Amino acid sequence: MTARIREFLRDRHANANDHGPCLVVDLDVVRDNYQNFAKALPDTRVFYAVKANPAAEVLTLLAGLGSCFDTASVAEIEMVLAAGATADRISLGNTIKKERDVARAYALGVRLYAVDCQAEVDKIARAAPGSRVFCRILSDCVGAEWPLSRKFGCEPAMAVDVLEHAHRLGLEAYGISFHVGSQQRNPHAWDRALASAAAVFRDCGDRGMNLSMVNLGGGFPTKYLKNVPTVKAYGAAIFRALRRHFGNRIPETIIEPGRGMVGNAGVIEAEVVLVSKKSENDDVRWVYLDIGKFGGLAETMDESIRYPIRTPRDGRDAELAPCVLAGPTCDSADVLYEKVPYPLPISLEIGDKVLIEGTGAYTATYSSVAFNGFAPLQTFHI
Amino acid sequence: MTARIREFLRDRHANANDHGPCLVVDLDVVRDNYQNFAKALPDTRVFYAVKANPAAEVLTLLAGLGSCFDTASVAEIEMVLAAGATADRISLGNTIKKERDVARAYALGVRLYAVDCQAEVDKIARAAPGSRVFCRILSDCVGAEWPLSRKFGCEPAMAVDVLEHAHRLGLEAYGISFHVGSQQRNPHAWDRALASAAAVFRDCGDRGMNLSMVNLGGGFPTKYLKNVPTVKAYGAAIFRALRRHFGNRIPETIIEPGRGMVGNAGVIEAEVVLVSKKSENDDVRWVYLDIGKFGGLAETMDESIRYPIRTPRDGRDAELAPCVLAGPTCDSADVLYEKVPYPLPISLEIGDKVLIEGTGAYTATYSSVAFNGFAPLQTFHI
Repeated sequence: MTARIREFLRDRHANANDHGPCLVVDLDVVRDNYQNFAKALPDTRVFYAVKANPAAEVLTLLAGLGSCFDTASVAEIEMVLAAGATADRISLGNTIKKERDVARAYALGVRLYAVDCQAEVDKIARAAPGSRVFCRILSDCVGAEWPLSRKFGCEPAMAVDVLEHAHRLGLEAYGISFHVGSQQRNPHAWDRALASAAAVFRDCGDRGMNLSMVNLGGGFPTKYLKNVPTVKAYGAAIFRALRRHFGNRIPETIIEPGRGMVGNAGVIEAEVVLVSKKSENDDVRWVYLDIGKFGGLAETMDESIRYPIRTPRDGRDAELAPCVLAGPTCDSADVLYEKVPYPLPISLEIGDKVLIEGTGAYTATYSSVAFNGFAPLQTFHI
Repeated sequence: MTARIREFLRDRHANANDHGPCLVVDLDVVRDNYQNFAKALPDTRVFYAVKANPAAEVLTLLAGLGSCFDTASVAEIEMVLAAGATADRISLGNTIKKERDVARAYALGVRLYAVDCQAEVDKIARAAPGSRVFCRILSDCVGAEWPLSRKFGCEPAMAVDVLEHAHRLGLEAYGISFHVGSQQRNPHAWDRALASAAAVFRDCGDRGMNLSMVNLGGGFPTKYLKNVPTVKAYGAAIFRALRRHFGNRIPETIIEPGRGMVGNAGVIEAEVVLVSKKSENDDVRWVYLDIGKFGGLAETMDESIRYPIRTPRDGRDAELAPCVLAGPTCDSADVLYEKVPYPLPISLEIGDKVLIEGTGAYTATYSSVAFNGFAPLQTFHI
């Protein structure tokens, strides 16, 4: 929560017609985050993961600061170009691409692509000849709060074959990428993945390919309820791991922060629609907000991400009681926290505004178009 | 799959620029479904659950056939009115409502509201004076494929107090509602809930309130992979349960089919973007489609709903192998079926079009606005 966001919300409340939940992102915080990444990893290029928050204001700010961009689709590439970045600062980092989308990306000037299998290499060789490709390898996600499935990446041994296939088809076998899991709270998580990456570098070298780059992925956490290590701590741990596994031949590196770049810059303001019990003698109250899983808080899925919530009833003497927290739709799956109820002041009332912090990433674009007739999350970038 | 949908898709393919997944809904099937409900439960009014598919074409068709409408928000009320139904055919069935939304619904003419606690009654007494309210009671969901949480409803004993509170505030204590769980495959599931409802009727009678109506909710299934009983079987089982618990004083009844009205009317056509393995000797292939959890298939959450999928490689002699099925976004949670892999022909190839059946309900409006830059699901109602 920043003074600028607080002031913005005060003005918004003065406009009585301005109802419904909204996300407010403080661009000054995004700027600080970018500069902290740049400082903590001075030899590493920052590719902002656009999917975390593709708002034009965020992209324009980061383009101006010199950031590069990791995109998931042609639409995201177009947004980045519109924000003023050139195509040589863009990677298409999605390992799942239609060949015609690769062709469109190539036509727009993009020359850096992620792959994790030979079929994907074939598409790029045909539709984006001569481009650089990096192969994503699987890595475990111990320590991540939003661990990744095996959806992206291949086993390291297969990566060598995939890169050799690319090399044979005239592509530049450029490097390796991995992802240690989103909201990774352990700075040492990169160590094991870098050991695998170094092994792939050696195996490729044995086959006559000199890889240049390691994409360290994202995973940098934002502060929710628990404290997280500083970006500086991540930078130091990653540098030590690079030294350990690559010795004096440290490759070019890039990082892809998304949540770490914008998560803590945003606050969602929501309204308490109802506080109720299911029977007279229930211990747990149900608190219903005007935002839920389908309005932007999709990452509460399985209660993985636990956002800090501020209410106007907070205070040193506020008595708390456990609440089940739910969204406003008629979908019974639209419950945010139930397995571990959320403690909120017992004085909380219908109509109270609550602030859901750390919501600058992976919220607005997850909103459903119109489920139950509710509009997508309003956003303001200030 | 109907001949009309097949023909529509053939024409669409002829237009080479028409890419991306789409939902096609055959309105003739919706009409048949409505008429089957009307026939199976001749004394019951049908309130179509608009949230299942709020497309103007569906609403206009059903308004013309004489259906009533269960809505979740003011926006849905406005859509129904725009489709030509009058306000006396609309209920606001969401138990979680802002008071200003109740006021707007009242101004639009709506006089029938769902509640499940006294606080909600207070709002309606203030913002929609004199209206009818029905109280939702909790019921178990044994037999449902998409079981409901305790999010909506209160214990039956509390419902009597809630209705008495409404009565004292000048509202009409109109009846009881319950929901036996979505995709309920057991026609006898209504029996136990009707026993509870009858008990509330008696207790209210003892306190001088004569309830009139039982809202039997939705839950009527659509056929996915397993066969489901006919609507006629549901009608007969419900009628017997009403007789058993209400004797000769059978109340007015309404039903709220959503999935049962539109689910089997829709087919999503998607494209295979990638087929790959994670290592050379993997048993399971990964098949990536251009639609996933955030593009309309949200109900694959926890792999609850298992859609039938047709491919151009099907056939009596097609050899099948288990696949993990995933969507196109860079979100590792965007996996449709993994715990129980989906058997698909081993000859399936990149670029193949697949048909995902039974997708007329709870798909298009769940689409995210733009996650990863992907557009919301295109829809065609023919």
